[in-house]
Amino acid sequence: MKAEIIAIGNELVSGQSLDTNSQWLSRELGRIGIAVRFHTTLGDDLQENVDAFHVAFNRAELVLMSGGLGPTQDDLTREALAHVAGVPLVEDAVSLAAIEAMFARRNRPMAPRNRVQAFLPEGAEALPNRVGTAPGIWMRVGPSLVGCLPGVPHEMRLMYDEQVLPRLRQAGFVTRAIVQRKINMFGKGESDIEAEAMDLTARGRVPEVGITAHEATISLRVVGEGATEDEARRMMEPTIALINERFGPLIVGEGKEDVADGLVKLLASTGKTLATAESCTGGLIAHLITAIPGVSAYYPGGVVSYANEAKVQLLGVPRELLEAHGAVSPEVAAAMAVGVRDRFGADLGLSVTGVAGPTGGSPEKPVGLVYLGLVTDKGVETRRLDIGPEQPREVIQQRSAKHALNWARIALLPRATSEA
Amino acid sequence: MKAEIIAIGNELVSGQSLDTNSQWLSRELGRIGIAVRFHTTLGDDLQENVDAFHVAFNRAELVLMSGGLGPTQDDLTREALAHVAGVPLVEDAVSLAAIEAMFARRNRPMAPRNRVQAFLPEGAEALPNRVGTAPGIWMRVGPSLVGCLPGVPHEMRLMYDEQVLPRLRQAGFVTRAIVQRKINMFGKGESDIEAEAMDLTARGRVPEVGITAHEATISLRVVGEGATEDEARRMMEPTIALINERFGPLIVGEGKEDVADGLVKLLASTGKTLATAESCTGGLIAHLITAIPGVSAYYPGGVVSYANEAKVQLLGVPRELLEAHGAVSPEVAAAMAVGVRDRFGADLGLSVTGVAGPTGGSPEKPVGLVYLGLVTDKGVETRRLDIGPEQPREVIQQRSAKHALNWARIALLPRATSEA
Repeated sequence: MKAEIIAIGNELVSGQSLDTNSQWLSRELGRIGIAVRFHTTLGDDLQENVDAFHVAFNRAELVLMSGGLGPTQDDLTREALAHVAGVPLVEDAVSLAAIEAMFARRNRPMAPRNRVQAFLPEGAEALPNRVGTAPGIWMRVGPSLVGCLPGVPHEMRLMYDEQVLPRLRQAGFVTRAIVQRKINMFGKGESDIEAEAMDLTARGRVPEVGITAHEATISLRVVGEGATEDEARRMMEPTIALINERFGPLIVGEGKEDVADGLVKLLASTGKTLATAESCTGGLIAHLITAIPGVSAYYPGGVVSYANEAKVQLLGVPRELLEAHGAVSPEVAAAMAVGVRDRFGADLGLSVTGVAGPTGGSPEKPVGLVYLGLVTDKGVETRRLDIGPEQPREVIQQRSAKHALNWARIALLPRATSEA
Repeated sequence: MKAEIIAIGNELVSGQSLDTNSQWLSRELGRIGIAVRFHTTLGDDLQENVDAFHVAFNRAELVLMSGGLGPTQDDLTREALAHVAGVPLVEDAVSLAAIEAMFARRNRPMAPRNRVQAFLPEGAEALPNRVGTAPGIWMRVGPSLVGCLPGVPHEMRLMYDEQVLPRLRQAGFVTRAIVQRKINMFGKGESDIEAEAMDLTARGRVPEVGITAHEATISLRVVGEGATEDEARRMMEPTIALINERFGPLIVGEGKEDVADGLVKLLASTGKTLATAESCTGGLIAHLITAIPGVSAYYPGGVVSYANEAKVQLLGVPRELLEAHGAVSPEVAAAMAVGVRDRFGADLGLSVTGVAGPTGGSPEKPVGLVYLGLVTDKGVETRRLDIGPEQPREVIQQRSAKHALNWARIALLPRATSEA
């Protein structure tokens, strides 16, 4: 059984945008034992789509597509699919009602063009879209099962999970269970972790363990296989236990979890609260924390004190301190941490001040120089980061935010673990 | 003239790795007037490669490939290409010498397997690789010109620049200069903007205008063509002027610029300052503003007042107001905006308070209900957004932040424009 993924859009084939949908769908299909053997990316051209659909239906038993379902003249997936299947497009009353209801909920009039989104190839099944206007399409064309999903990634993903996956199970496409677990770590370099994980990442080991790095977070990915998901999970357990034992304090979470998730879990388990004072990270730390649902009990808030005057007025940093040491200094980092903890009445105060660049650097305080401050019940401490003047602003902000969050996380670990 | 890009590797087709080479090559080819119409991604399987090469050579006059040139058994590009061309693989003495020299420079013995990298389809030209062991391949197969490059991105890019581009010029493929400009708008839906831009996006119009949407930002992409880049730019000017005239107040920027860039440009041109008070967006607005370099003159900072107590203590929101109307209310949004403007001594104060979900909603105040507050020299106003309880937290936060930034931007537009 082979599968093909097709992504449609001029912006993809011209290189204006990067297609990430095909990778996501391949990974999801791989997880249920379906081997994706082809990705095809097409522009918004009817004949090219028709020809490429013929190629796909000829070599793959399952074809999933994303894109080309919008309301504009460029959106040709419906038409191309009907053409290849040799059927007309017919209006689907349920889809039309759903599109009208979506506009009504948003208190916006429905443009006449949106009506075309309710047309499907005759004999196709509409896949409901809970979060957008474009319904998906599910149909059999010759020997191939075909699913068309919207191009907007979060709509595509939700529709895959809720509509496509159950239909694949029903069609008997799901035979083996493949389970992946990704254990995420922060605080050591990739080559250090790789050296400590040589036995785990050796070729041919069962279950297989791979190592990847993304924005200084290092992940070990464990892949288990079995007749059922339970069986696959069980055979992975000794390996997961070994990883936990060996890398304990470095581990921030699993799957999509990163440093902020690790910190929030420890805030929840210790019942402590944290407030943040940010200069060069400009709200990024607050944003990373509040992207996690349910943090209001542990995170009363923070101050983005971009201007020096804001550090004085909102955080109570003494003006003399700023004049004597400059805003980018351990002294000011410490005063910001203490100030924000006191203003918000929190248990911990975390601060960042630095030079994010690309301008504003000096020989003594170059771009990439960052000071962190952390105050806990054990007192206030500061740390210096040298991220490097060659790094872009975005990397300096991201790296500073992650190091700051990780420091607060480590401070909340049970003592024996954090000193290990 | 159509081009196709092929990327080869099991790690790509399975979704383990994300292919970025195809996007990069498409953009580079587009820049010199070569339209890429197809991307294909293949695994390491000889028959699948042979079949897909046939499809590609049948529909594209130029086919560039990346990957499958390594020394392992999985690397099958050489073999598949020779098969399709109907010629044997022959050893290239120059390439073998280059591979041996590369190992000698690195003081490492050459593994016997590396010798296969010096084999090319008979009649092909080797493309030297200055930074890796795999030479590329350049040859004509039937009516198609074919270039094979290594899969490692920095090797691929260097080989394209140094070896492929000059050969494309020599082959007469580079005839026209293509310039793309992307004009980004916010504040209206895609179908509304499309309805107003029907004449611009009509098929066959010169220059061509396309429409795309990304996170509620709608873009018109204008593609100009000419003998030179200057000529291409000149022929686009009337269309750009028409778009500016018609969509003026909606336009936030060009290229990668989004709503925050539009706001910051207006802060700079008017010399005004802005402070932000965020509840449900939790620092995202501050982060979007401070991601732009050089904003400190216009953005003193903000408060993330996640807890109610923080709204009282740091923004001076009256406790009675919170008790009477709740944190998610127009009254509290207004008080937050005024409070943050006063605390930071800014010209404008912008606030957001809402229910980002997934929990915390109620029948009266569902997930997705958001109030914005804006205070300017004309007084304080509030707005209500209904983003919809079906939207994920991330979308509610992003959408709220963009609407808030856009509202402040509109308020800073010269009066005649903003009332148009």
